[in-house]
Amino acid sequence: MSAYARLADRFARIATLSEAGEMLSWDASTVMPPGGAEARGDQLAVLAGMGHAMLTAPEAAADFGAAEAPAGDWEAANLSLMRAAHLRATALPAELVEAETRAQSACEMVWREARPAADFGRVAPYLEEVVRLARARGEALAGPLGLSPYDALMDGFQRGVTSADVEPVFARLEAFLGEALPAAEARQAARPAPVGLCGVFAAEVQEALCKRLAGLAGLDFSHARLDRSLHPFCGGTPTDVRITTRYDGSDPAQAIMGVLHETGHALYERGLPEAWRRQPVGTAAGMAAHESQSLIVEMQAARSDAYLGWLSGELVGAFGDGGVATTPSNLARLWRRVERGFIRVEADEMTYPAHVIMRFRLERALISGDLAVRDLPGAWGDAQQALLGIRPPDDRVGCLQDIHWYDGLFGYFPSYTLGAMAAAQLMAAARRELPGLDAAFGRGDLSPLVGWLAAHVHAHGNRLGFSELLVAATGKVLDAGDFERHLTARYLG
Amino acid sequence: MSAYARLADRFARIATLSEAGEMLSWDASTVMPPGGAEARGDQLAVLAGMGHAMLTAPEAAADFGAAEAPAGDWEAANLSLMRAAHLRATALPAELVEAETRAQSACEMVWREARPAADFGRVAPYLEEVVRLARARGEALAGPLGLSPYDALMDGFQRGVTSADVEPVFARLEAFLGEALPAAEARQAARPAPVGLCGVFAAEVQEALCKRLAGLAGLDFSHARLDRSLHPFCGGTPTDVRITTRYDGSDPAQAIMGVLHETGHALYERGLPEAWRRQPVGTAAGMAAHESQSLIVEMQAARSDAYLGWLSGELVGAFGDGGVATTPSNLARLWRRVERGFIRVEADEMTYPAHVIMRFRLERALISGDLAVRDLPGAWGDAQQALLGIRPPDDRVGCLQDIHWYDGLFGYFPSYTLGAMAAAQLMAAARRELPGLDAAFGRGDLSPLVGWLAAHVHAHGNRLGFSELLVAATGKVLDAGDFERHLTARYLG
Repeated sequence: MSAYARLADRFARIATLSEAGEMLSWDASTVMPPGGAEARGDQLAVLAGMGHAMLTAPEAAADFGAAEAPAGDWEAANLSLMRAAHLRATALPAELVEAETRAQSACEMVWREARPAADFGRVAPYLEEVVRLARARGEALAGPLGLSPYDALMDGFQRGVTSADVEPVFARLEAFLGEALPAAEARQAARPAPVGLCGVFAAEVQEALCKRLAGLAGLDFSHARLDRSLHPFCGGTPTDVRITTRYDGSDPAQAIMGVLHETGHALYERGLPEAWRRQPVGTAAGMAAHESQSLIVEMQAARSDAYLGWLSGELVGAFGDGGVATTPSNLARLWRRVERGFIRVEADEMTYPAHVIMRFRLERALISGDLAVRDLPGAWGDAQQALLGIRPPDDRVGCLQDIHWYDGLFGYFPSYTLGAMAAAQLMAAARRELPGLDAAFGRGDLSPLVGWLAAHVHAHGNRLGFSELLVAATGKVLDAGDFERHLTARYLG
Repeated sequence: MSAYARLADRFARIATLSEAGEMLSWDASTVMPPGGAEARGDQLAVLAGMGHAMLTAPEAAADFGAAEAPAGDWEAANLSLMRAAHLRATALPAELVEAETRAQSACEMVWREARPAADFGRVAPYLEEVVRLARARGEALAGPLGLSPYDALMDGFQRGVTSADVEPVFARLEAFLGEALPAAEARQAARPAPVGLCGVFAAEVQEALCKRLAGLAGLDFSHARLDRSLHPFCGGTPTDVRITTRYDGSDPAQAIMGVLHETGHALYERGLPEAWRRQPVGTAAGMAAHESQSLIVEMQAARSDAYLGWLSGELVGAFGDGGVATTPSNLARLWRRVERGFIRVEADEMTYPAHVIMRFRLERALISGDLAVRDLPGAWGDAQQALLGIRPPDDRVGCLQDIHWYDGLFGYFPSYTLGAMAAAQLMAAARRELPGLDAAFGRGDLSPLVGWLAAHVHAHGNRLGFSELLVAATGKVLDAGDFERHLTARYLG
């Protein structure tokens, strides 16, 4: 057995352990009784600890020393991804990892009280410690990875994407939005106001409809489940993928669009190359790539005129005729409404990038030390004023709204907008190659699109980084052009 | 850190891994989509393999060599149980373990086809191999454990109980049944025939009722769940216990009594000593002890006149008045009917021991080599003729009915009847100490009984073996007397 084969075997076992953890996390978020939480924490910690021990074992280091790049692109990419994972796991002193875990856990707990109280001062000292340790982690990884500290953090979510790639794209997008957003608002104001859906929307009926939509979008429920959780997510494994949503009895939009979003994630997992299952090269190509797959289903396909036209009939069939409210044109006005708001997760497709751009800039400044934690609320207000022309009345709807930083996640936010841009770029490429796309959307059928994504995105696994993947699928690196054209066509056309 | 403390730590980690496996097995039996089965098998195999590796690691052997019995009964019992687990894990050659796993898996697969076809000849060669390997396992364990090969297998399910303990008790029980069974049938024939419950019993209504009954029996659903599965079971962990059942739309008896049975198991897990969580001494005291806890709830308490009187009202409340069918006296005749049948899992309380006694004798003869696999069908018919006076028309309802042997489980069957006898013995002791027991049963309230069991059974964990536990709780070792008195009072009184 070669050193490479031994490593592949080791990574397969680590991945299998991690699948067990995935399933236990799903259980904790969906069905676990509250009394099981403490034991579940222990179980996940033991699994994570064993995975870490297997990755950092002396035998692994010896095999990395001896392993030669085997023949084949996939094998070479796989070895290189294994090396990167090993490097990430060994570059950090155990004391730093432990200190971060403790600090994040303490900070998150205080944040859960500080947020509803709009009391940033209470959590600020905890956040300072989290930022200090995240910076230390970035600095420890920077040398080995050959990146700046912030880029080393971002690389953990989206390998091969640096601030230098993101900055110009975000700058262009900012400039575009500065003109497009007022124009979209003006156009919107000149049209009839949307009528909200009225009535009681039973969770069971919503659930059956959502399952039908996901199935028509291509999700095979002999390898998937749809369940309920407080925060929607996509978990599980490629052959047993678990998506969740929640049901609002007065508005089915959240569940419908949420399930279609998670279905996009799930289809990516389902489409990963079976031959490379449980190898680093057989996984998804990072968070931005993953978000591109959820957003191409939710934003590009499911909010298209063609799909909404069909969905209107499905809504009437499930819940009865809502009059004007359930007409295709009203659904388009209702579910594609542009509105400047304080809250990222409630933002529409056009204002969402503004939320991300400001967070990207603020978190870079936090990590570099250019921005002190105590100055965050002011900087937040200034950034939102500059980008969206609004200033939050308090920190609850300001810098306390997202859990990410309080949990030590720095470098994650850009993925959302990189994914949105990639989704537009992939859709433009798919439209060039598949003429009948909208006709299929008009029957609720996403299979032509999903088939194209399976071949041009899913099947690549993690062999290509985000940028290479876009080049392979669309013929060009990421640029904001297709996203801008998409927004222009939908909101200014 | 002492060698004992290191071992305790090692066993806690092994137990935590095994909890993860428990949860994944629950998931596989309740909610997993079929497409997840293969990956789930891998996950469980990796977890089991890692647990085995931790148990058999050289460091563990070194610690066992150095460990001294610490002060305290619990500590001493814990070390002794750890040694036994280590001995079991290291006494078997890896090739034997692998050969058994393969042979059992192949045999079970053929059995699944042979059973409906009533074709014992088809599975016989596979069963021969399974028996041969089980015998080899028994022989490998016999020396280290100081037991006969069959007793070494039985010890794996119920430590400290040998054939020499079981034989005289079963012989006495056989003699008792020889007279009591015809007498019970005669008494039954002289009374009105029971009227079956009629109607449609919606699964949701059955489920709500079952949950209410389990709650009143003492199960705290902030630490438990009730779900659906093909075969009812109790799984999970002491702080997150998961029971299951299935719902027959034409008869709620199966679900109601099944849930009360699993509730007994669940209450045992819930009552285990928290201070010894994840240590061998903190687990349940084997299969017979576990079965005593399910049967004391299902058979002793829930089928008592007092409980059935109350349950009659619950049934009427949930499903409407069934006339004669839902009267307490009819429920007693219906749910305590004695009937000689071929199938163990459908047997009533009085004929059940006959099914177990014959299996105990047959499996001992298979392991000793006194009975050849090819002669099993004939020996089965003869044994059932002798014990119950009936002979199965084919092997489907004969020696093909249970999965146990085809899966390599030898020495397990006695637990069922040891548990039934222990349940009667425990109930007799509880009745002596708790005068208001039936009054509580008459309100659906099992808490006085469960409180007594918690103190006299659950709280002991695995510190005492099955026989010692009975002595501690009831003042005497296992004998058939209380069980016989119970059957006499209920079926001949």
